[in-house]
Order: sequence, then structure tokens, then C-alpha cells
Amino acid sequence: MSLARTLEEMRCRIDARLEEVLRSEDPREARAVDAMRYSVLSGGKRIRPVLCLAAYEAVGGSGDGALSTAAALELIHAYSLVHDDLPCMDDDDVRRGRPTTHRAYGEGMAVLVGDALLTLAFDLLAEAPPGDQVEPGRRLEVLKTVARAAGLHGMIGGQVADLEAAKDPGDASLIEYVHAHKTGALIAVAVWAGGRLATDDPTVLGTLCRYGRAVGFAFQVVDDLLDSGEDPEGASYVACHGPDAARNRAESLIGEAEDHLTPLGPRGDLLREIARYIFSRIR
Amino acid sequence: MSLARTLEEMRCRIDARLEEVLRSEDPREARAVDAMRYSVLSGGKRIRPVLCLAAYEAVGGSGDGALSTAAALELIHAYSLVHDDLPCMDDDDVRRGRPTTHRAYGEGMAVLVGDALLTLAFDLLAEAPPGDQVEPGRRLEVLKTVARAAGLHGMIGGQVADLEAAKDPGDASLIEYVHAHKTGALIAVAVWAGGRLATDDPTVLGTLCRYGRAVGFAFQVVDDLLDSGEDPEGASYVACHGPDAARNRAESLIGEAEDHLTPLGPRGDLLREIARYIFSRIR
Repeated sequence: MSLARTLEEMRCRIDARLEEVLRSEDPREARAVDAMRYSVLSGGKRIRPVLCLAAYEAVGGSGDGALSTAAALELIHAYSLVHDDLPCMDDDDVRRGRPTTHRAYGEGMAVLVGDALLTLAFDLLAEAPPGDQVEPGRRLEVLKTVARAAGLHGMIGGQVADLEAAKDPGDASLIEYVHAHKTGALIAVAVWAGGRLATDDPTVLGTLCRYGRAVGFAFQVVDDLLDSGEDPEGASYVACHGPDAARNRAESLIGEAEDHLTPLGPRGDLLREIARYIFSRIR
Repeated sequence: MSLARTLEEMRCRIDARLEEVLRSEDPREARAVDAMRYSVLSGGKRIRPVLCLAAYEAVGGSGDGALSTAAALELIHAYSLVHDDLPCMDDDDVRRGRPTTHRAYGEGMAVLVGDALLTLAFDLLAEAPPGDQVEPGRRLEVLKTVARAAGLHGMIGGQVADLEAAKDPGDASLIEYVHAHKTGALIAVAVWAGGRLATDDPTVLGTLCRYGRAVGFAFQVVDDLLDSGEDPEGASYVACHGPDAARNRAESLIGEAEDHLTPLGPRGDLLREIARYIFSRIR
């Protein structure tokens, strides 16, 4: 199977799992479930869950052992967007060409939808597939590490700093901090978590960590470049360093990410492909 | 030790654990940590964590095996209050005699503080104390069950229904649904979780479940009675049935809760005491 086909097939498995968990039989929950599905199943690149599954398979994982973890990472990403779009945060009306969740369902519902998606993510992180090969202790470790990456010392810390950065958009060290936390932490932990569910080997996990950090930072710089035509908000690498420096930085980060994969040999091909795909968005 | 002393000592252990986890060395996180501490360490009855520890000890648990789980339950409660007070939800300016979190720190920060508290709760639920006696698989089961009770099928579902009930405050079946979910689910799971961390015995866990459900409902009716002097919002048992019927209902629920504890004999004394304490608030 070609790498592009493999990626597409992974996205299908992730979307099927998300479809499956975003359901309710209870009519009283219908509107909230509708709003949750609206917020999650509206396209999106599924970068975090794809990285998780690709890392899992690159280091020897098989079957659905990482699928719920991968889906959980997408739910965490989706919740952060719903809350980030709120009027008291970035105040965005449109995302992916459609009204944002609070514009479509009201602000109160958007707050609750974000909370419900985050809570469901941890429900999924605690889930073992039938015939699970992963020991419960390792799942707990992965869950705890994801919680750290998503919490105040990770993604939320980046969002807090982003609120501050809106006041002083030219502070370069603050921008690096925001990027590393707001976007980088969850992308890096996606790679690590996939690996950890398949292996104990600290050398292999170190390799995945370095790759994850480089890819996470590259992803944010690329996103900044794609957004730079629009009204820039908060901390932006492009606003601070200019588009040429940003493009160079993204390219060198992708190169670094690929280099980090060398010890994995051909097993790292899919992760390499994903790194190039991220850069291809600005080519 | 008297039961009152035991309860007070439990509250101290819980507050010490909360103090310990609500900290950061990073100056960039200082304001957010400050807002988190403001939201959690401002008094409060600690009913959920106390019930968790009391249930744990009632069925043979010892040491700190349930302490992080107990603290996590208080963080989940605190996050739900911070988000519930937001202008787009209940729009409350004052809680426990002080400005609500969004009044003190701004709306954007209040959204993020709630998110951070919820995420930290799952970090704590995944935590094993040094020399832990509880198998990791059981911690995963407890974490997953708490996630269910806090999520769309539990607490958040109750909040969603409460948003709807604000439009039709006289619907009695909707009020039962809101109570059972918004408050009851987390209180009931606090009791069950404490028990589950100490025992496998399904009969004992069934006993704790029934007690937890009765106490959870009683707690909400009592809260409604205490609030009924103020401006009633959303679904209220008192607004629907009147204060006399509410008082009778609370009393009979507390009686039921005590009856459910009969199989535990004197081991159930502390849980019995907590049920009476809940009712004593309206005597």
C-alpha cells in the first residue's frame, strides 16, 4: 500500500472511532451530541491521531491498541478549538468555512461541549480494546502524560500565555513559549503516546520524542504562515520574524524531524511522510 | 476520635493534597495557578472527597490509596462551578461571599482555569501513591467511571438540561433529571469510587451505590432549600414542589441513605454521620 493510501486508511479508522463514541440514545442529550459532532466531525487533518497511530505502528504496535488513544487526542484538540473560539477568547465566528460552535449552538452550549469533549477524551484514554495487549499500568502512564501535556504545564499554559501575548505580539521568547506549549505539547505527546503503547525501549522512545517536538513546532510555524494572510491574533512566528524566516525555519525543522528518524530505518517512512506532508501545505 | 474530629481531619488531608498539586515553579504560570487556587481553596464543604475517603475507609481501605482520587473529585466540582458561573451560563458575580473567578480574573482566564482544573483532575485520578496497594487496572476502571459520571451522560448532561430548564422551570420530571445528573452523579460516584479502591465485593459496592444515590439527591434538595431565599435559577425542587414538600423529601432521602448502610454495621457510622450533617444544614 502506498504511504498516501496508508494515511487515508488511518484517517478512516480514526473517524469511524470518533463517530462511534459521539453518540447517545437519550433524546435529552441529542442537541449536545449534535453540537459535539459538529465540533469534531467537520473535517480537519487529524494530524495528532494519525501521528499517534503512525508512531505506534512504526515501533511494532499492531491492531487497535492505540486507536482510542488516537481518537482521544483529536477530542482534546477539538475541545481546545471550541473554547479558543469563544467571544471571551479569540472571538472567532468561522472555522473551516462554517460558523464556530458557539455561533451555531450558543455560548453556554459551546462551553459545555468543550467540557464534554475533554471529559470523553479521558474516558477513551482509559479504554482497552477487546483482547488488549497493553498492561493497564502503561495505559495509566500514557493517560497521565497526555493530561500533563494538555494541562497547565502544556497546552493550557500556552493558551494562557497567548492571552497575554495578545497584549505584546512582538515578544519572540514568549512566542516560542506559546508555540511549544499551545500546539507543540499535544503533537509531541501524540507521537510519544503511540510509541509508548507499543514499546518499553527508552532509545526508541527518545527518538520519537525528538521527532515529535520538531514536527510539533514545524506544524505551528506552517499554520502561522497559512494564517498570515488573515488578521493575525496573539503570538505569531510570522508576525515576529517575517514570512521568509518562518518558511526557512519550518523547512529546517522538518529536516531535523526527518533526521531524528534515522535510527528507525524504513520503519520510520510513514512518520517521514507525515513530516513532509506538513511542510507541503506551504509549498 | 469523635466522628466530627474524623471529618475535620479528612478535610485537612484533602486540603493539604489540593494545596500540593495547585502549584507551579514557572512564573509564566503564576497568574493561572493563582486563579486555580482562588477557585478551589476558598472554603467549601469538601463533601465529595470526604464521601470518597469515608467510603474507602468504611469498606477496609487504609492509608492514602484514595486521597488523590478524592482530591480529583473536588477539582471536578470546582471546575464545574467556575464554568457554571460564567456570563454565558448562570452569570453569577459572587460565590462564597467573594467575586466569582471570571469577575476576579476575567472571562478568558476563567474558561482556561476550568479546563486546567478538569485536566488536572484526570492527572490525579491516574496517580498511585508510593507503595500503592491498588492494581493499575482498578485505577483505570475508577477513572473511567468518574469520567462517565462527570461527562455528557452525567454531570455535564445535567448542566445541558439545566440550560433548557431555565426556559420551563416548572417541569418536575426535568428537575429530577437535572438533579440526578448535575449534582447526584458526581456525589454518587465519589462514594462508589472510594469503595471500589478498597474492595471487589459487589454486595458492598451495591450498598455504597444506593447510599450514594440517596445522599446525592438529598444534597441537591437541601441546596435548593438553602438557595430558595435567593433568586432561583434553572431547575429547583423548591420552586417546583414548595419548601415543605422539599424538606420532607430531603428528610426521607436521608433516612433512606442511612437504611442502605445497615449491612455495613458500625463501619458505616461515618457515612451515616455525613448524611445527617447534610440534612443538619436546613435544621
